[in-house]
Amino acid sequence: MKIKDIGGEAGLIDRIKTKVKLYSKNVFAGIGDDAAVLKYNKKHYFLFTTDSLVENVHFSLKYFKPEQIGTKAVEQNVSDIAAMGGVPKYALLSFYFPKNIEIGLVDGIMNGINKKCREYKISVIGGNVSSSKQIIISIAMIGFAEKKYLALRSGAKINDLIFCTGNVGPSALGLELLKKKVKGNSIKKHLDPKSMLNLARKIVKIGVNSMIDVSDGVASEIRNICSESNVGALIYADKIPISKSAIKDAEKIKKNPLDFALYGGEDFELIFTASKNKLKKLKKYSVTVIGKIVDKKYGIRLIKNNKRLKLRDGFDHFR
Amino acid sequence: MKIKDIGGEAGLIDRIKTKVKLYSKNVFAGIGDDAAVLKYNKKHYFLFTTDSLVENVHFSLKYFKPEQIGTKAVEQNVSDIAAMGGVPKYALLSFYFPKNIEIGLVDGIMNGINKKCREYKISVIGGNVSSSKQIIISIAMIGFAEKKYLALRSGAKINDLIFCTGNVGPSALGLELLKKKVKGNSIKKHLDPKSMLNLARKIVKIGVNSMIDVSDGVASEIRNICSESNVGALIYADKIPISKSAIKDAEKIKKNPLDFALYGGEDFELIFTASKNKLKKLKKYSVTVIGKIVDKKYGIRLIKNNKRLKLRDGFDHFR
Repeated sequence: MKIKDIGGEAGLIDRIKTKVKLYSKNVFAGIGDDAAVLKYNKKHYFLFTTDSLVENVHFSLKYFKPEQIGTKAVEQNVSDIAAMGGVPKYALLSFYFPKNIEIGLVDGIMNGINKKCREYKISVIGGNVSSSKQIIISIAMIGFAEKKYLALRSGAKINDLIFCTGNVGPSALGLELLKKKVKGNSIKKHLDPKSMLNLARKIVKIGVNSMIDVSDGVASEIRNICSESNVGALIYADKIPISKSAIKDAEKIKKNPLDFALYGGEDFELIFTASKNKLKKLKKYSVTVIGKIVDKKYGIRLIKNNKRLKLRDGFDHFR
Repeated sequence: MKIKDIGGEAGLIDRIKTKVKLYSKNVFAGIGDDAAVLKYNKKHYFLFTTDSLVENVHFSLKYFKPEQIGTKAVEQNVSDIAAMGGVPKYALLSFYFPKNIEIGLVDGIMNGINKKCREYKISVIGGNVSSSKQIIISIAMIGFAEKKYLALRSGAKINDLIFCTGNVGPSALGLELLKKKVKGNSIKKHLDPKSMLNLARKIVKIGVNSMIDVSDGVASEIRNICSESNVGALIYADKIPISKSAIKDAEKIKKNPLDFALYGGEDFELIFTASKNKLKKLKKYSVTVIGKIVDKKYGIRLIKNNKRLKLRDGFDHFR
């Protein structure tokens, strides 16, 4: 039996989740959110996450400058901390390099990491290096969140509005353009994605019930929120924010930009839910209402032109 | 220029170390020890480390049962926490698996990890999975140390005695036996190494000035202590503890067991330094005096039969 036979990456994580145990009362939230949450002090939680970029899985040296590998590796971890409503503080770097790698490439990756750590004031406090067949840049990141601002995937409530920040889809669309050697603005979003840390901090101060970052596409993220919160969702396909340049780029390769938004991922935008009374304050920022939370019995429905569409799974490297 | 041209793994780490910056006053010790040390509360430091096992670099499926990969992955991280004088508490698991890996193999690795987490009461609180060409099991571990018991590499003082726990060399020797298809007791030490967590806790309560675990061989670890403490060392080759069965196993393959002790690694024994007045209390445990700390101007000298031997570098995957 292979990983694809047990439901791919999500099935694998579920399998691992059922096998592990907690031996401490200080774990506020374990496997199943963007970051683990540990009790820290009266006012703060302590956040702990890890994410990696694997050569020819998450990036290709054909498209990425070394520095961009480093910046994306930091941004994707910062995005996980942001999705919890927290701020990043420390990082451990784990590097896996082929023996014959050029030092210039290593230096370039480090420059990208340092640039982002300087921007976010993240202290690199340790790590590990090993030889391997592929370049892998893995970062474990520590952050903090004020207890009152912590945003879990599991807090969505029935009648919450579902919000999406910025525009979704361009990262996966950009990758498609790169593969097809077609030019377009979306490419930059694939090579230089930016986490929504600052926006996330503003949003949690207004008050959200649940939040997640868009790693695997809007469909997958809403499914995660619903599963952790034990609710259903109604998603309005026409409301999902897609930029004009993404529509243009998708036309060039005869694809539907909505597919990239729903199933692409790596945009590092945020999906969050909040009660209606927060709408006025939230609307000051670049956020769009894309649906609402409903009772679990209604499932997760994607509505377009009054028709219900089937919601596929998000991107999965193991399928 | 390749990694071997800048001094291999140690040169690479030095290069990274000079490039990173700290943006927090809460970092008590960053890159350069077995674990990073952050301020936690009045009485405790918070420890943070990461280490990994890469297929065909650190283990081979020809020799290892899946469960043994899992147990070793935990033990090597616990060993890093032990070397700081601390106790492990939480872990994040990062798994890299080839797409076509058998689920039975994944389950076996998880069983090994869970067995050890149960033994040490370590809570698995999160992680990440990705596809890759090789199996890689990476663990990021969090622990705590009482401030009074924290043991750094950098605390060695002139005239300190240098101690070694247990016996060293069997892990690397066991690997050599496996490769040559020769049987011997040392093999078990390669496949099922055990960290010295309990012993480390007893030792730090007596009082040590510096400590490190034996990841890359005794020579490399003493060099690390000397470099971080800005001192020299005198090592008595004949005092380095080597078990009778290791001597027997080394004879079988016509090798010098001292070479495995000095340059092999992965024994997860501890090298530590303490002042002479602790000797009596320390001698109650399985520890051996193998040398003493001297002024930096004398360098690091290895003495055998009144002759000074050249000290080679430890094992390095990048050379």
